[in-house]
Amino acid sequence: MNILITAGGTSESIDTVRSISNHATGRLGAIIADTFAKAGSHITYVCSEHAMLPTCENVEQISIQNVEQLLKTLETLLHERSFDCVIHSMAVSDYRPQTVLTMEDIAEALMKLTQQSDFSQEDLLPDICTAILNAGKPLNDKKISSAASNMLLLLEKTPKVIRCIKAIQPHTLLVGFKLLSQVSRLELLDAGQQLLRQNDCDFVLANDLKNIKDDTHKAFLINKDGILQDAKTKQDIAEMIFKYVSERLEERK
Amino acid sequence: MNILITAGGTSESIDTVRSISNHATGRLGAIIADTFAKAGSHITYVCSEHAMLPTCENVEQISIQNVEQLLKTLETLLHERSFDCVIHSMAVSDYRPQTVLTMEDIAEALMKLTQQSDFSQEDLLPDICTAILNAGKPLNDKKISSAASNMLLLLEKTPKVIRCIKAIQPHTLLVGFKLLSQVSRLELLDAGQQLLRQNDCDFVLANDLKNIKDDTHKAFLINKDGILQDAKTKQDIAEMIFKYVSERLEERK
Repeated sequence: MNILITAGGTSESIDTVRSISNHATGRLGAIIADTFAKAGSHITYVCSEHAMLPTCENVEQISIQNVEQLLKTLETLLHERSFDCVIHSMAVSDYRPQTVLTMEDIAEALMKLTQQSDFSQEDLLPDICTAILNAGKPLNDKKISSAASNMLLLLEKTPKVIRCIKAIQPHTLLVGFKLLSQVSRLELLDAGQQLLRQNDCDFVLANDLKNIKDDTHKAFLINKDGILQDAKTKQDIAEMIFKYVSERLEERK
Repeated sequence: MNILITAGGTSESIDTVRSISNHATGRLGAIIADTFAKAGSHITYVCSEHAMLPTCENVEQISIQNVEQLLKTLETLLHERSFDCVIHSMAVSDYRPQTVLTMEDIAEALMKLTQQSDFSQEDLLPDICTAILNAGKPLNDKKISSAASNMLLLLEKTPKVIRCIKAIQPHTLLVGFKLLSQVSRLELLDAGQQLLRQNDCDFVLANDLKNIKDDTHKAFLINKDGILQDAKTKQDIAEMIFKYVSERLEERK
């Protein structure tokens, strides 16, 4: 099998010395990669800089830092090679820094707006939002000054990387990952189903941070019909994914 | 000699899965630690999780994550033990996440303000600051929702950790570090002098990111009278600091 695995967490620069990072270690991704590689699969392993690496051979490693690099790398790989399955375990930043604002920037923008606009009118929200969006200083190659007692970091949504996978290779099997924190089982399974539907995943691994500690890693593997199986450790998860992916690929032959 | 060295970069949590981190690798701190340890010093090495570690013996390692933990750790160490010298090379976050706001939160707060306040009056800045400070949702143990197309992260200044060092041990030698990005030599040296004066440093290592690449690491060691010496590699820097610190401690005997 030819398998593409993403692992670790992306990191988005604020300035030359700071960034917003996802904590993911890549440990689960590395164990999944080793489980598939041991069974003879060729693995393309796209991971972040500090991510844990698989120990097996047959693993080709590509390192990325931010969402933009991840997207470009996956697009290139998916156009150039055919994958039987894509296992997208990487924690991808939902937001990235867009501009930085001081309180003064916002005050100035608001003052200007009050001089131009009729504040008796009902909905000034869009105008105020636009004013704030335009008030920030673009982030550049300099280190942000640390003079102000407060600072506002305006974040913008990153593109949904997972969407490119089936868009480019509609016939690859896609395993998505949903990680939430401190939610009910029902909420977790609902969020998993939503990810599955919105991105045309074949399987989703749904897990909650509260159930991940040391060797314990509780998770559900779901498909559109509901829960297929649950697991209690990272090794369990890897074997569970391997089993269902292999079965599905076998059925297709 | 009994030396306290800080190295690496602090990291401040945004939520359970994200944080703002300083990129520092701790490589310079590790080389400085080894240089002092080889000469027989006992090193207490306070570093961040992913920081590079010294290879010598006589190094006691303490790991911290954020500014608050760093401050508590240094205060405890400085109260319990006497250090001949503190070499504070760690990149400490200037800001940490305080609250998270959506555009709507901020726009609503400002709308309310425009209805209450007289916008002809000169300085609305304090009112605007208060409104924004109060509009945010406190960060808690949950993962921030990723529904909104933009998000604002309100950052507050962290306490100045370096100030505690001479406040608790006035007679220790203190080496501060000033890292800027893309500035003139004059601006860098001025910033170094300012750090030195404000925090009662005996020496400051002043360097610019543009002069740090692979094996090259240009830096100046300054004291209140100006530049003492410059260096071109991390090993140079370590030996330069060792030389001046040793000389000064020798003079004191």
